[in-house]
Amino acid sequence: MGQFKAADTGYEARVRDSFSRQKFMATIGAELLSVEPGEVEILVPHREELCQQHGLFHGGVIGTIADNACGYAAYSLMQPQNSVLTVEYKLNIMSPAKGEALIARAHVVRPGRRVSVCQADIYVVRLDEEKLCATALGTFITLENTSDHSLDSAAA
Amino acid sequence: MGQFKAADTGYEARVRDSFSRQKFMATIGAELLSVEPGEVEILVPHREELCQQHGLFHGGVIGTIADNACGYAAYSLMQPQNSVLTVEYKLNIMSPAKGEALIARAHVVRPGRRVSVCQADIYVVRLDEEKLCATALGTFITLENTSDHSLDSAAA
Amino acid sequence: MGQFKAADTGYEARVRDSFSRQKFMATIGAELLSVEPGEVEILVPHREELCQQHGLFHGGVIGTIADNACGYAAYSLMQPQNSVLTVEYKLNIMSPAKGEALIARAHVVRPGRRVSVCQADIYVVRLDEEKLCATALGTFITLENTSDHSLDSAAA
Amino acid sequence: MGQFKAADTGYEARVRDSFSRQKFMATIGAELLSVEPGEVEILVPHREELCQQHGLFHGGVIGTIADNACGYAAYSLMQPQNSVLTVEYKLNIMSPAKGEALIARAHVVRPGRRVSVCQADIYVVRLDEEKLCATALGTFITLENTSDHSLDSAAA
Repeated sequence: MGQFKAADTGYEARVRDSFSRQKFMATIGAELLSVEPGEVEILVPHREELCQQHGLFHGGVIGTIADNACGYAAYSLMQPQNSVLTVEYKLNIMSPAKGEALIARAHVVRPGRRVSVCQADIYVVRLDEEKLCATALGTFITLENTSDHSLDSAAA
Repeated sequence: MGQFKAADTGYEARVRDSFSRQKFMATIGAELLSVEPGEVEILVPHREELCQQHGLFHGGVIGTIADNACGYAAYSLMQPQNSVLTVEYKLNIMSPAKGEALIARAHVVRPGRRVSVCQADIYVVRLDEEKLCATALGTFITLENTSDHSLDSAAA
Repeated sequence: MGQFKAADTGYEARVRDSFSRQKFMATIGAELLSVEPGEVEILVPHREELCQQHGLFHGGVIGTIADNACGYAAYSLMQPQNSVLTVEYKLNIMSPAKGEALIARAHVVRPGRRVSVCQADIYVVRLDEEKLCATALGTFITLENTSDHSLDSAAA
Repeated sequence: MGQFKAADTGYEARVRDSFSRQKFMATIGAELLSVEPGEVEILVPHREELCQQHGLFHGGVIGTIADNACGYAAYSLMQPQNSVLTVEYKLNIMSPAKGEALIARAHVVRPGRRVSVCQADIYVVRLDEEKLCATALGTFITLENTSDHSLDSAAA
C-alpha cells in the first residue's frame, strides 16, 4: 500500500468514470471497490448467470476482473491525457471459485512511461473467508495523448 | 483439420451438453459453432452489454471464449469418464475488437493423458471480413474418472 | 517465509543434489543459495559469456534461473519418490539486467498434489543494491513415483 | 512464408550482426539459420553442457532460443534506426527435449509500430526426425531511434 504516488490527483475519478462506462462491468455486476495509486479492487457478487456448469464462477469472469483490475491499476498512475490498453495477460486458476463473491486485487509491479506490468490475485469469498483462487500477471501500454474519452469518437 | 481422432465417438454431444450447461455462455450470448476432434469454434454476436467504454468487445469476452474454446478442444479428445479443467492461459490482444461478432477458433497443440496444450485465435467479424484480434495459449488438465456431470454433486 | 512445511525432511539435500546434476547450471555459473520449504534462491555472477550485445545479462539467463528457482521451490514440497517438470512459465522482463549478479527468488504460490503454481522475482545486483528486473509465473507438475534419479535410466 | 515484407532491405544483415554480438549465443553454441522477413530460425546442437540432470536439453536453452528467435523475427521487420526489446514471453514445454539438436522457428503474428506479437515452435531433432517439444508466445517492443549499435554506449 502506498508504494506509488499518482501523477494526477484526479486519478480516482478518472478510473471510476472509465469503469462506469464499461457496459460489460454492469452485465456481470462488477463493483469497483478501492482505487489507490497503482492499486485497484473489483468485486463481483455471485449470480447463476456468471457460472459454469457446476455453479462455480466461470473462468471468464475471473479473467475479466483480473484484467480490468490490472488495467485500472496501471491507468491510476497515468497522466490524465493518456489512456491504457491491455497488451496481454496470463491467468493461473488455482482452485474452484465457489463462493458468494469474487474479489480481484491488482497492483502495479513496474510502472512505465510506455509499458506497465501489473499483478492481480483473485479471491473467492465463502462464509466471510477469502481464499486465493487465481493469480494473473499482465502487460499494459500507455496510449499517449489519447484520453479515455477521446477514444469514444476515434472508435466510432 | 482432421489432425486428431477422438477417443470417444460421443465427443461432440459431450462438448455441446457441457457448453449448454454453462450459464455464463448464455449470459454473453455465445454459440458453439463447429466441434471437431481437437478443434472448437465459438461465436459471440455483438451486443452493447458486452462492450467496454468505446463500444468494442470487452477484453473479458475475448478471454472468456478463448479459454472456453481451448478447454472444449481439449475435452473433445478425452475419454467420456474424464473432464477438463483450465490450469492457465495467456491472451495477447492485438487489435481493437470492433465488429458484429467475435469468433474464437481453438485447436489442441499437444494432447496429453494428463496435460493438454491448446491454442486459440480470436477474430472480429466486420462487414463479413474476419480480422485476427487476439491469440491465446493455454494449459488444460484432465480430471480422471470425474465426468462433467459427476462434478455437479461434487461441487454442490 | 515459513509459509510451507516440507513433506520430506530431506528436501534441501534432494534439491541440492538435483541442481548439482544439471550441467547447464555449471555452464552459466549458477549457484543455489537458500533452499527453504517452498522457497528457493539462485544466483548467477556476471560474466561476458552470459551477455547479450550490450553487456547486459541475456534474457535467456534470466528465464533459465526463473524457471529453475520456481521448479525447485515446487520440488522442495514434494515427496522424495516424486519429481518435478516445468509445464510452462511466463516471464516479464522489466528493466535492463545490468549489474554484477542476477538473483532469482522463487516461492510456491499454490502447492498441489499434481499441479503447483510458483512465482519468481529476478533482481540484478549493482553496487550492492538490488533492483527488480523481471518477474515470472509458472506451472509445474508432479511426476509421481518417478524420482529425480530414476529418470536417469528412463531418459537413457 | 512470405507473409511479410521487410521495411529495410538490410534486415538480414542487421539481424545477423546483432546475433553475432550476443555472447550468450556463442556460449550455448546457437546458430542463426534462416532469416526471412518476420521469420527466424535458430539451431542449437546438443552438448552435455546444455543439459539438465537427465541428459535432455535444459528448459533454459529452449526458452533462450524461443525468446531470441521471436525477438529477431520482430526485429527483421523494423526500420534500421530502431531496435527490439523483449517485453515478455510464455513458454509451454510439451515433451522431453531429447535429441541431437534443438530448432526454434519463430514468426511474427502481428507486427506493430510499437508492439509486436511473435510465436515460436521449438523442435528437437532425433535421428533426422523433428518433434515439437515446446511452443512460445511473446510480446516485443520497438525502441525508436535507438539502433542496436547505439545502445552499446547507452548501456555502458
